[in-house]
Amino acid sequence: MQIDWNKTCGLKKVHYVCPKCGNEFKKSLQRMLKKFNLDIERIEKGIKSGKIKFYESLGFPTLHFKKDVGKLEAGTVIYFHKKVDIIRGFPKIRRTLLLSPTIEKHFKDFVAVEEKMNGYNVRIAKVGEKIVALTRGGFICPFTTNKVMELLNLEDFFNDFPDLIVCGEMIGTHNPYVPHYYPEVGKLGFRIFDIRRKVSNEALSVYEKNKLLKKYNLPGVRLFGIFDVEEAPKKIEEIIKELEKENREGVVIKDPEMKIPPVKYTCGRAHHSELKFAFTFPFDFGRHFLFSRVIREGFQSYEFKESREEMRERAKRIGESILLPMIETIKKIAENGVAHEDVIIDVETKAEAEKLIRHLRKQGVIAKLVSYKDGKAKIRRIYQSTTDKIKHYLNGGLY
Amino acid sequence: MQIDWNKTCGLKKVHYVCPKCGNEFKKSLQRMLKKFNLDIERIEKGIKSGKIKFYESLGFPTLHFKKDVGKLEAGTVIYFHKKVDIIRGFPKIRRTLLLSPTIEKHFKDFVAVEEKMNGYNVRIAKVGEKIVALTRGGFICPFTTNKVMELLNLEDFFNDFPDLIVCGEMIGTHNPYVPHYYPEVGKLGFRIFDIRRKVSNEALSVYEKNKLLKKYNLPGVRLFGIFDVEEAPKKIEEIIKELEKENREGVVIKDPEMKIPPVKYTCGRAHHSELKFAFTFPFDFGRHFLFSRVIREGFQSYEFKESREEMRERAKRIGESILLPMIETIKKIAENGVAHEDVIIDVETKAEAEKLIRHLRKQGVIAKLVSYKDGKAKIRRIYQSTTDKIKHYLNGGLY
Repeated sequence: MQIDWNKTCGLKKVHYVCPKCGNEFKKSLQRMLKKFNLDIERIEKGIKSGKIKFYESLGFPTLHFKKDVGKLEAGTVIYFHKKVDIIRGFPKIRRTLLLSPTIEKHFKDFVAVEEKMNGYNVRIAKVGEKIVALTRGGFICPFTTNKVMELLNLEDFFNDFPDLIVCGEMIGTHNPYVPHYYPEVGKLGFRIFDIRRKVSNEALSVYEKNKLLKKYNLPGVRLFGIFDVEEAPKKIEEIIKELEKENREGVVIKDPEMKIPPVKYTCGRAHHSELKFAFTFPFDFGRHFLFSRVIREGFQSYEFKESREEMRERAKRIGESILLPMIETIKKIAENGVAHEDVIIDVETKAEAEKLIRHLRKQGVIAKLVSYKDGKAKIRRIYQSTTDKIKHYLNGGLY
Repeated sequence: MQIDWNKTCGLKKVHYVCPKCGNEFKKSLQRMLKKFNLDIERIEKGIKSGKIKFYESLGFPTLHFKKDVGKLEAGTVIYFHKKVDIIRGFPKIRRTLLLSPTIEKHFKDFVAVEEKMNGYNVRIAKVGEKIVALTRGGFICPFTTNKVMELLNLEDFFNDFPDLIVCGEMIGTHNPYVPHYYPEVGKLGFRIFDIRRKVSNEALSVYEKNKLLKKYNLPGVRLFGIFDVEEAPKKIEEIIKELEKENREGVVIKDPEMKIPPVKYTCGRAHHSELKFAFTFPFDFGRHFLFSRVIREGFQSYEFKESREEMRERAKRIGESILLPMIETIKKIAENGVAHEDVIIDVETKAEAEKLIRHLRKQGVIAKLVSYKDGKAKIRRIYQSTTDKIKHYLNGGLY
């Protein structure tokens, strides 16, 4: 469909001229896009091909990037309100398989080592008068938006800095995406790892970020220290071994100035947990998860100079993480079950839980509300590929 | 390029009019292709796109199908000599993850259970006056052609049946493709599993095949028995457990009449061996091999109703098959090595080994002759992706 940028876009009757403020955005959008070597034609092409969705959100015309388009990464959202507000997708953090020599090669002089937590990535931004929380893909999640407002005191921060974005991890057992237990938060908590600028996506330095977090009393992820690149590998190996014992995920290694892209590095146990999850639902996640996880294990075992005994222990864990959950799921489906995962979330009302379910479904997740009582909602996610494929084989289908 | 079927094809100067017998083939090829809902136009399109190669082989114009084209499967070869000779690609045998209920559903009344051997698939056919051995992809392998002539007495058979194709497995430790020890053959042996017809690819029934093999004193694969489909799963489970102990691969389950496509089923240990191989060269084979092997393990463990202890033992083997060879390879490459595999083959002359090397290279395999002495040639295959990727990570590259 062709969008008439001067009148209406024809899509859900959203006016390109903002229905709220009456502003006309063509020129300012063009100016913005130029920074990314993009133009309106390219955006329209993206809408046609489905890479970009154009809809109304928060009462504003909104462009939502489902895929990378030029320099604008998937997860980018552009709102047209008083101005053209670009909230960039959170950049993919690359992984290193080895600490040494990679850290010394990739960074210069010093690295900041922060904890990487096992939850889900959230960007919090002020759009117009509203503070909203976006999940990785760029959707405003109603549950997450509510919760960050409960968990964090963000009003002052965003009054002072409406053009900054707070990026962090929602963690804890009572979250609908990646439930994992952290003793320090229990059911739900939020930890901030980056503060970035709208439009440019530039991150504040680790120092500036921590200064602001302190000033506004906002919770950051743990900073293990700032190390010389030469000593960092040894230090990180020690940190990883400690995190491993506590069943925590790993670290993100950053240039303290945030001029060089960060890299991540994770614990063996995190790989095993992910494999367990993936092989509980093998035909939904197995193939995609498997190879990279075992490759990480090989390099980690090599770098940590493991003994034959330690290698065998690691191998056993890999094997068990793959095989045992898969057999459990086959059994469950043979007994007429369905491959599913239940999570509990805390909500104010049943309607809030139902709103989350609708939100999940819009993203293609098969989810339902199993029960609601006294602010506790049990949400079920169903893994259809795993259910269907295993049924097919159990009924005599060929591979 | 356009082929003028009545004059020359312009490709390597091969004449469509056979340079040996002077025959002109356009009409008979057209007639043949009709059976497969194909026409010459489609063949020419295939040549253009690279799905089909057109070259001279054995002195005859030859069409070699690298990919499926219509009903003609990859590995199909068409020779134009006195007649149009179509040697069809060996059909892919589908796998079952479960013996029950699949066997009962897929077959009717009875199944013949034959041993599946761990070697490489070979089709032997008479083309003109020559008996040649083709590997899976449809190449005439000079080593294999020599060896089948040494190992088997095929002259009488092909004199009587020039339109049949002998399909079997080349096995043993001294083979350049899939070396595996079988006590009954040692260095090299051949076992026939199918006799098929040219053009139609129809397989003789198991009974007819075995009658012919007996008559011409040709070695077949082991036939474990012909079982009622209801008792077959239990019988095969027992057979598999025996084969497992002897480190043998598995079975092919066939309709004795060969009217229904056969299916294959393999031992856990075969999966572990394949994983070990794949993770000795993780970036050449790992990703492709991994998922399907572990899925097989899950279903087998489930069907065999394994105890917790047996599951853990199987899991440990899976993990060790993945992790330990990978670490070995990382170490080897860190010490400036190259990911490689050496095999010994027995040849008459050094020239014969060199010919095989040239043949392997033509197929994109990086191979070299390491040494030759007294009829023993040591051949090295180099796995470049594994070597390059591991080097890259060891030198500080990001994943």
